[in-house]
Amino acid sequence: MKTVYITRRETFNAAHKLWREEWSDEKNWGVFGKCSNHNWHGHNFQLYITVKGVPNQETGFVINLKLLSELVREHIIEALDHKNLNLDVPFLKGIMASTENMAIAIWDILDPLVRAHGGEMAKIKLIETENNFVEYYGGKEPF
Amino acid sequence: MKTVYITRRETFNAAHKLWREEWSDEKNWGVFGKCSNHNWHGHNFQLYITVKGVPNQETGFVINLKLLSELVREHIIEALDHKNLNLDVPFLKGIMASTENMAIAIWDILDPLVRAHGGEMAKIKLIETENNFVEYYGGKEPF
Amino acid sequence: MKTVYITRRETFNAAHKLWREEWSDEKNWGVFGKCSNHNWHGHNFQLYITVKGVPNQETGFVINLKLLSELVREHIIEALDHKNLNLDVPFLKGIMASTENMAIAIWDILDPLVRAHGGEMAKIKLIETENNFVEYYGGKEPF
Amino acid sequence: MKTVYITRRETFNAAHKLWREEWSDEKNWGVFGKCSNHNWHGHNFQLYITVKGVPNQETGFVINLKLLSELVREHIIEALDHKNLNLDVPFLKGIMASTENMAIAIWDILDPLVRAHGGEMAKIKLIETENNFVEYYGGKEPF
Amino acid sequence: MKTVYITRRETFNAAHKLWREEWSDEKNWGVFGKCSNHNWHGHNFQLYITVKGVPNQETGFVINLKLLSELVREHIIEALDHKNLNLDVPFLKGIMASTENMAIAIWDILDPLVRAHGGEMAKIKLIETENNFVEYYGGKEPF
Amino acid sequence: MKTVYITRRETFNAAHKLWREEWSDEKNWGVFGKCSNHNWHGHNFQLYITVKGVPNQETGFVINLKLLSELVREHIIEALDHKNLNLDVPFLKGIMASTENMAIAIWDILDPLVRAHGGEMAKIKLIETENNFVEYYGGKEPF
Repeated sequence: MKTVYITRRETFNAAHKLWREEWSDEKNWGVFGKCSNHNWHGHNFQLYITVKGVPNQETGFVINLKLLSELVREHIIEALDHKNLNLDVPFLKGIMASTENMAIAIWDILDPLVRAHGGEMAKIKLIETENNFVEYYGGKEPF
Repeated sequence: MKTVYITRRETFNAAHKLWREEWSDEKNWGVFGKCSNHNWHGHNFQLYITVKGVPNQETGFVINLKLLSELVREHIIEALDHKNLNLDVPFLKGIMASTENMAIAIWDILDPLVRAHGGEMAKIKLIETENNFVEYYGGKEPF
Repeated sequence: MKTVYITRRETFNAAHKLWREEWSDEKNWGVFGKCSNHNWHGHNFQLYITVKGVPNQETGFVINLKLLSELVREHIIEALDHKNLNLDVPFLKGIMASTENMAIAIWDILDPLVRAHGGEMAKIKLIETENNFVEYYGGKEPF
Repeated sequence: MKTVYITRRETFNAAHKLWREEWSDEKNWGVFGKCSNHNWHGHNFQLYITVKGVPNQETGFVINLKLLSELVREHIIEALDHKNLNLDVPFLKGIMASTENMAIAIWDILDPLVRAHGGEMAKIKLIETENNFVEYYGGKEPF
Repeated sequence: MKTVYITRRETFNAAHKLWREEWSDEKNWGVFGKCSNHNWHGHNFQLYITVKGVPNQETGFVINLKLLSELVREHIIEALDHKNLNLDVPFLKGIMASTENMAIAIWDILDPLVRAHGGEMAKIKLIETENNFVEYYGGKEPF
Repeated sequence: MKTVYITRRETFNAAHKLWREEWSDEKNWGVFGKCSNHNWHGHNFQLYITVKGVPNQETGFVINLKLLSELVREHIIEALDHKNLNLDVPFLKGIMASTENMAIAIWDILDPLVRAHGGEMAKIKLIETENNFVEYYGGKEPF
C-alpha cells in the first residue's frame, strides 16, 4: 500500500495579540512580551494542510487539490484572512490565539470535511514568521 | 569613483487597516476592500534600507552595517514592531498607513540620520506580502 | 514630488521550447541546448509588474493593487497560465518564446491598460528559474 | 544508535499534462481542470531525497552527498530535466504523471541504488509549485 | 492529549573544513572533495529547534519561544556564530565537523536545558546550503 | 531600441574575515566586530550577474545564459567556491575582503570577458546573508 502525503499551502494576513483579560498589564507583558501590545500586531500566516492516502489508479491523486483548496478557503481562510484573530473569528472565540491553538482549531474544522470527501488529514503546519512555526498531527506523536 | 550600494534588511510585524474616518463603510470597502476590516489585520513586513557610497580604503565599507542596523532598529523598528500602524506610531499619525506612505515616512526619518554618519540614503524597499512591495528612491525617478 | 514604485507579483506555470523551425536539429541544439527539447519543457514563472507614481492624498495608493492584479490576471495570466507559450498564446505568435521577448510582449499589453487607469508602467521582472530572470523598463536604460 | 536523516535537493524543469486518453475532453477538464491543457504546461520541480543512517565514525557522513547527488542526477534528473513527463520519460510510461506517482516512481529507482551503496532511503519530497508538494516514505505511514 | 510541535529558527555563519589529520591530502580530497580545502570555507547555517508538548491552558504555549530562543542563543549560537567550527567550538572538539555530527552535538546540549524548563526536544534541523540539510530526532527513527 | 536586462545567479561558499594586520586586536574588534574572528567565519554567497542588451532577432537572447554561466563559473566561482577569500583568491590579494570590494573585483574581471562576447555588463549583486547584500553598477549611480 503506497501511502503518499500531499500538501496544499494557503495564506492569510491577520492581526492578533496574546493577552489574558484577567491578568495585569505587567503579568501580560512578563509572559507575552511585545506580543501583548494592546492595539494588536499582525502577521502573514502560511498554512500548510497535508492529506494522506493511496493515489487513485485513474487520476493519480491522493485528493484533488482543487477540492482541498476550496474546502480550506471556504472554511478557514475566509474566516481568518484580513481579520482580527481575537475578535473576528467564531472558531477562535474564547481561545488564546497562539499559533499552537490555531493549528488545533484548524485541524478540528478540516478533519471531518476532508473525511467527508474520502480523504484523511495527516498534518497542519502553520508558519507565523520566518523564525516561528508549529506542526500538529491531530494529537499523534510521530517523534 | 566606484560607487557601491549596500543594503540591510530588518523586519517587523504590525497591524494596520486602510480606512478613512470621513468615508462611509461602503466607500471604505469599495476602495480598500478587505484591507478596511474594522478590527485590523496585519503583516510580517520586510524593510530593506540601501545606502550608497565609495568603499572606505581601510575598511572596505560604504557604511558600517552594524551602525546602519542600530540606527534602523532604534528609530524605525522600535516604533513599528508589534505595533498598530494606525494607532501606535508617532511618525505615521495622520497619514494613511499604506505601504507607499510608510516607505516615504521611513526615508524621511533615516535620511538625516544616515547623512549625519557620513552616508547617503539611496533606496527604501518595503515588502508587505510575497505579492506586494514598494520602492522609494527619495523621490528620484531612476526609471 | 514623491514618486513611489509599487510592485505586484503574479505567477503562471507554462510549457515552452526554444526552437527555430528553419534550423536543423543540430543547430537548434547547439544554440538552445536542452531548452530545444522537441516535446517541450516548462517552468513556474513569476511575473513582477511595477507601476510608478505619486501616492494619492486620500488613499495613499500609487495605484489600487486590486485593480492592477485584475488587469494582469485578465490580460496576461489568463493567456499564459497552464498553457504552451509557443502554441497557445495569441500575443506570442511568431515570437521566439525567450524570457526576454515575453517581458517585452507583456509590457506592450499592460502599458496602455495601466495608462488608461491613470498609472504609469515602470518595470517588468520575469523570473524563469531561481537562477535566471529578466527585467525590462520599457526600453529605458536606467543603468 | 544515533540515526540522522540527510537530504539533498536537486531540481528539474519539465512539461506535463494530466489527461486520460479514454476520457472525453469534458471529463478531463472536469477532473483535471487547467492541468489538462492539450498542449501541456510545465513546472520548476524541486526534488528532495532523504537518506537515513548512523554517521560514519571517520567521515561524519551518513552518506557522501557527492555520491548521492551523482546517483540522483544520473538516474533521475537526466531523465526528467527539460523533458515532457508524459512523452519522454521511460520510467513514467503508462503512469498518470501526477506528483504523487512521480514521487513513488523516483523512490522505486533510487531505493536499490542507494541500498547498493550502503545507504537507506527514508523519504522523497517533490515540490511542484510553492503551493503544492508531496512526500513519500516508501509506503510507510509515520503519521 | 493534543501534542503540538513548535519550532524556532536561529542562524549562524561559520567556517569549517572536512579534514582528517591522519589522512594524506590525496585521501582527504578523495573523500571530502572541495570541502577539504586547507584554508577553510564557510556557510550561513540555519538551525531549527523543535519542541513538543501539549499547549498550556492559560498561555496557549508549548514552550515560551522567547525562552527557547534565549537558551539556543546563549548555549549554541554564541559558540558557533562567526567562528571556526574546527578550531573555536568547545563542544565540537575532536569531532568531525560534518552537519550530521553538529546536529547531534547541538541536541545533546539543548536536550537537558529544554527538559529543565519543562519542555521536550523533538527535532533538530540544520541547513548548510539550499541543497543540503540534516534532521535529527534524538536518535529516534520516525520513518 | 528595446533594451532588456538579463540576470544569472551562481553561488559559492567561502570563508573570510575582516581584519587589518596593522591594527591592534582591539581596533579590529571595534571596527569589524565578530567579523574579525581570528580563525575566520564564512557564508553561502549568492552572486547575480546582470547583462544588458537588445534581444537577438533569431534567438530572442540578450546573451546566451549558458555562455554567461560558463564565463562566471570558470573565472569567478572556480576561484571563490570553498575557498578562503583572504588567503586563496589571487584577484582579492591585498584587498579587504568586504562584500563591497568583492563586487567591484568581480565586475572588473567579468566586464572585459562579457564585452569580448558581445555583451555589456550592467550590474553585480552579491548577497552575503539574508540580511546583507551589495549592488554595483560599474561605478554608475542610477539613483
